[in-house]
Amino acid sequence: MNTGPAEGPGKRSGLRLAILAGAGEYPAHVARNARAAGAEVYVAALSGAANIADFPGCDAQEYRLGQLGRLLDALKRREVTDIVMIGALPRPSFGALAPELSTLKYLPHFARAFQGGDDHLLRGVVSFFEGQGFRVGSPAEMAPEIVAPLGALGRTVPASVARDALLRGFDLLAALSPFDIGQGAVIADHRVIAVEAAEGTDAMLERVATLVRAGRLKLGKGDGVLVKAPKHGQDLRVDMPAIGPDTVARVAEAGLAGIAVRAGGVLVGDRARLAAQADAAGIFIEGVS
Amino acid sequence: MNTGPAEGPGKRSGLRLAILAGAGEYPAHVARNARAAGAEVYVAALSGAANIADFPGCDAQEYRLGQLGRLLDALKRREVTDIVMIGALPRPSFGALAPELSTLKYLPHFARAFQGGDDHLLRGVVSFFEGQGFRVGSPAEMAPEIVAPLGALGRTVPASVARDALLRGFDLLAALSPFDIGQGAVIADHRVIAVEAAEGTDAMLERVATLVRAGRLKLGKGDGVLVKAPKHGQDLRVDMPAIGPDTVARVAEAGLAGIAVRAGGVLVGDRARLAAQADAAGIFIEGVS
Repeated sequence: MNTGPAEGPGKRSGLRLAILAGAGEYPAHVARNARAAGAEVYVAALSGAANIADFPGCDAQEYRLGQLGRLLDALKRREVTDIVMIGALPRPSFGALAPELSTLKYLPHFARAFQGGDDHLLRGVVSFFEGQGFRVGSPAEMAPEIVAPLGALGRTVPASVARDALLRGFDLLAALSPFDIGQGAVIADHRVIAVEAAEGTDAMLERVATLVRAGRLKLGKGDGVLVKAPKHGQDLRVDMPAIGPDTVARVAEAGLAGIAVRAGGVLVGDRARLAAQADAAGIFIEGVS
Repeated sequence: MNTGPAEGPGKRSGLRLAILAGAGEYPAHVARNARAAGAEVYVAALSGAANIADFPGCDAQEYRLGQLGRLLDALKRREVTDIVMIGALPRPSFGALAPELSTLKYLPHFARAFQGGDDHLLRGVVSFFEGQGFRVGSPAEMAPEIVAPLGALGRTVPASVARDALLRGFDLLAALSPFDIGQGAVIADHRVIAVEAAEGTDAMLERVATLVRAGRLKLGKGDGVLVKAPKHGQDLRVDMPAIGPDTVARVAEAGLAGIAVRAGGVLVGDRARLAAQADAAGIFIEGVS
């Protein structure tokens, strides 16, 4: 927090915030919260991922990745000081950037960032905006209520078999951290069933559902946990793992008992709605410290 | 080697070996080799996995898992001293064992073994046969030529991008070892693309092919490696990772540059045939120390 009075509504007054918005509902959450706190919000919606119609009342424009030069001009014209990047992005291919003339000069910075894992790419994006004089903030700071709290989100709590599984799962994710993967895994039947890498959480959960349907995984009562956590050293400003209604639906469909997330380290969006959905499905969502 | 003269053909003469045969071609390889070396071979073909027709000239019978008591009687009648377990098994469900009366008394031993990862289950099987007085040997000892040698199996060798990837892959598998998974992973595009858990290597390779087809993974020339290695402390007598013609075909289909295996730690079956297939597909198979 670098502006305005420290407490109460209006604590962000005077803040000129740009939200670089990807897909999903999180960008709109952050925009609403920041505006409610008094910030002036400009939304740069990534073409094909976010839609400016989801930001009613906001100053919002759509950009392609190749329009970075144009975006910088808009940010400077609006005297934006802070940037938050939020929402899902398809991993872009460098060749498909289709840069405009005003963007070409920035390409060398990104050419290197593309040579590596997602972490590396996102660090490159953060360092780029910081190099242009912006502060890059975390969505959790702008909208703390969209992050997983400690303990059960709904009424269901993990049984002891699931508690054992989730602890093993967090250990596994920690071991995977140095390899720039390891945001998700499924533990059930006293073993590691699936590890998430480039395919993403949804595809991993579908795989688990397939194993269950094929009889290759038998789930006892209360067994089966999806674990999600940030990597050690992950930059939570730009790369916080997330769960949402789709995750809950897929976990329920796979027959798993619940979801365990690192408290304070995973986006959950609208907590009350997610809790209600989990309760209805009979699955737990547990924030673990 | 616990029997017979140490050198040359006939070095296994006097050895009474039982091969507990699962699916695939490895059991027949081991049977041929052991017989060529002079051993008396009895084949217990696991029903639904192995077929006694694949062991011409061998004393061979088919067994269900639930016929363990009957199997033990047969082994003792034949004065079998050594056992080799080889070939792929579907992970059995304890409930589906359908034990015969003569098998019931052995069930408590296995009930515990079923509570854990594959490692744990296989250790339970080994300790069971050892407890019955048999020596459990390794397939590699009976047929060393079916294990991956050091260096290139065919004419193709990994480019430097693939060499970097395979080293990273072996590091990843080592980190996964304590979690009773980690026999396979795919590294490409300077990142970890897929990690194998309960789905198996084939399903993992299909997933990678899907990512490539969807444009979510771009493979540069010479890039993309499947790595396979045993876990630290893995009992190579009963649980050696394996590659075969299917693996080579799927690696080629996914567009990967090659396969890296731990030399001496991964079954490759008929080396010459696999090398010819890899050469025809233009992929490398590299044994790494």
